Amino acid sequence: MTRIVALDTFDVRFPTSRMLDGSDAMNPDPDYSAAYVVLRTDDPGLSGHGLVFTIGRGNDVQAAALAALAPHVVGRRVDALAADLGGFARALTDDSQLRWLGPEKGVMHMAIGAVVNAAWDLAARRAGKPVWRLIAEMAPERIADLVDYRYLGDALTRQEALDILRRAEPGRAARTAQLLEEGYPAYTTSPGWLGYPDEKLARLAREAVDAGFRTIKIKVGASLDDDVRRCRIARQAIGPDVALAVDANQRWDVGPAIEWMRALAPFGIAWIEEPTSPDDILGHAAIRRGIAPVPVSTGEHAHNRVMFKQLFQAGAVDLVQIDAARVGGVNENLAILLLAAKFGVRVFPHAGGVGLCELVQHLAMADFVAISAAKEDRAIEFVDHLHQHFDDPVRIERGRYRAPTAPGFSARMREDSVRDHLFPGGRAWREADAPLPARVGT
Amino acid sequence: MTRIVALDTFDVRFPTSRMLDGSDAMNPDPDYSAAYVVLRTDDPGLSGHGLVFTIGRGNDVQAAALAALAPHVVGRRVDALAADLGGFARALTDDSQLRWLGPEKGVMHMAIGAVVNAAWDLAARRAGKPVWRLIAEMAPERIADLVDYRYLGDALTRQEALDILRRAEPGRAARTAQLLEEGYPAYTTSPGWLGYPDEKLARLAREAVDAGFRTIKIKVGASLDDDVRRCRIARQAIGPDVALAVDANQRWDVGPAIEWMRALAPFGIAWIEEPTSPDDILGHAAIRRGIAPVPVSTGEHAHNRVMFKQLFQAGAVDLVQIDAARVGGVNENLAILLLAAKFGVRVFPHAGGVGLCELVQHLAMADFVAISAAKEDRAIEFVDHLHQHFDDPVRIERGRYRAPTAPGFSARMREDSVRDHLFPGGRAWREADAPLPARVGT
Repeated sequence: MTRIVALDTFDVRFPTSRMLDGSDAMNPDPDYSAAYVVLRTDDPGLSGHGLVFTIGRGNDVQAAALAALAPHVVGRRVDALAADLGGFARALTDDSQLRWLGPEKGVMHMAIGAVVNAAWDLAARRAGKPVWRLIAEMAPERIADLVDYRYLGDALTRQEALDILRRAEPGRAARTAQLLEEGYPAYTTSPGWLGYPDEKLARLAREAVDAGFRTIKIKVGASLDDDVRRCRIARQAIGPDVALAVDANQRWDVGPAIEWMRALAPFGIAWIEEPTSPDDILGHAAIRRGIAPVPVSTGEHAHNRVMFKQLFQAGAVDLVQIDAARVGGVNENLAILLLAAKFGVRVFPHAGGVGLCELVQHLAMADFVAISAAKEDRAIEFVDHLHQHFDDPVRIERGRYRAPTAPGFSARMREDSVRDHLFPGGRAWREADAPLPARVGT
Repeated sequence: MTRIVALDTFDVRFPTSRMLDGSDAMNPDPDYSAAYVVLRTDDPGLSGHGLVFTIGRGNDVQAAALAALAPHVVGRRVDALAADLGGFARALTDDSQLRWLGPEKGVMHMAIGAVVNAAWDLAARRAGKPVWRLIAEMAPERIADLVDYRYLGDALTRQEALDILRRAEPGRAARTAQLLEEGYPAYTTSPGWLGYPDEKLARLAREAVDAGFRTIKIKVGASLDDDVRRCRIARQAIGPDVALAVDANQRWDVGPAIEWMRALAPFGIAWIEEPTSPDDILGHAAIRRGIAPVPVSTGEHAHNRVMFKQLFQAGAVDLVQIDAARVGGVNENLAILLLAAKFGVRVFPHAGGVGLCELVQHLAMADFVAISAAKEDRAIEFVDHLHQHFDDPVRIERGRYRAPTAPGFSARMREDSVRDHLFPGGRAWREADAPLPARVGT
């Protein structure tokens, strides 16, 4: 009878700000970080892993929020946990005292998400399956029971969720085989960081197309003149047939977003991502009306299912991002995927950061097999960065994610990476004052 | 040249769950708590005080978030801080790495709010004025500069804010005198906690009317039968002329909220507060349409100005709560008060908790003198609880808040109270396992 005996937390940070990787209009100098959580059991061979991605300062606050959840976890039987991951997620979100700190948003909710994800990692390792497959092989009723329908009643009932899941059930085996054979489309943001010079943008954009990507995304929002020039460079580099998306990372108010995007529209924009505050549902709807037919998108910072529900109800978006580590874990993302299926909205999962690619691929693949049954009209973001710190890093081939086959959520970090990047005492930080190493080839 | 030399944090908790004070449909057993922050200066007679109200678990996480802001504060010159409180607030909310943890919501944003409020307390003590008066005596241009207009452009420009402030300017002196003479209307929630038996509800409701309150509020949402009975008891106790508000503390989905409130409407409901998720702008709008003419309200958990903007734009509320310790401090509450004035929505500030009455009275009074110029069509919540722990507690006379006259934000806690209620080592917690004391008179 295996039990969870400890919830360990780690403040892991990578000194990425030195190279301007990850720079955008709102985040000029991120140090990509993870508040990393490990659920240890009394079986030395079995543990669960999760993380909250942050961009530096405050990662210690996030780790403190993870630690605050230990009383909900330590002592639980692993078999009971694995049998009722819906009940487990609700036990965390329904702690009324912790709920006050959100509710269902910000530091506390992200901590809950990471612990819920760690429980999924644990359950999947125990079952010997990757998370996407663990979900995709559950009966529709069981998947439906994973979702908290509170506040969704005017948009998605359990019965409607069940109808969606049952409709997808007959094709599951064929789609699983197809996924293992073909992989899942990826798009890349690696060329388009705001801090990169034009030459590097053009070169990386060409390399992305050569590597098989059918969509690239670049950051915009700091200067309209620069953005017009950068969109022209990117479009020239990728040619007319590859899609070009842009991402403003919440930079604009409603009016400026409309003006700015009208100026960029001639370059053939696949979508504008996060044009304004992630809280501004009505603002996104107004922007969408103002720049039609340019598609509008948001979601990586949408903090829970209630926000996604309203984005869909208001017709505020053409497509949507999900993020594996922003909302309340796998369970809330299933709610969001079911809402998206109900409203017929395509999902382009947000990734990059630390471990976000590793995690979110499972959600997109479970969605393809068991929920939306679609993948070729959508793509998972990919940034080629920091994957070497994970035990089971993503595999990208010809612009597509290969389906992971190892048990778990691909969420386990390498022990030496964790040790070396502990903040502030780890080797990488002790050496961070040293001169920058020469960097070849980028 | 006085400088801030330290940011001290304290995890202060009161074991209120033992008496069911503060119990409602979502929060059955709160331990009212404060993550308390003190900005110390090199002048031993000058410090600034702020707090985040929480209901127990997680107060340590909130304190960690306060501590994370120390680098933004320690070393600042007090004169420069007091001269540019708008710039100070923006420096905190615009820290891109910390912003990722919200953005502008949850634990990190509440911490920013508490530190901004502590800076206001400091500035007001230095000026020798209560905060309401410090604001009310600023030139309209200076008040307008305190606000961050980002994401508000489609609803409130700086020019529109200035127009509102200038319209109110000629009457300021008369309204200040009127406020000092009459006080500001209060309403009370003390009778209506969900855990109280019927007899106690009836007795406290009668006592509230006898004490001069013209509005009382009771908690609803756990059981419709109980709520019908409790509304009947309350209405009988207060008679036909005193207003009866109800508060569901986010308990319902949209459909159930409409059904429930149709059943309670015959008792003459002044407003239904927090019928559903505080994130659900469209849901509140649907509920309002569904139960008209019963007024709908929310706001104590609305996490920033972007949410209030949309509540107004969507016509989702008839009136609104503000909370002194949920959003980004005085500055963001000024944005919300200006938005409310622009849209003609009445404000009934949320209070109770720990120190919320002490803080929010300043905002309502500044609003009366310098912004909306209205007070008799609105009221500040009052709960008679825990005020003895503050240096300058609120004074209620005949159902009205007396205007505070002492310098500062009324935010300073008594040193012995802080010491005795430190968690987990303070005297109150060491003794919390002892038998309950006999309680007389309530």
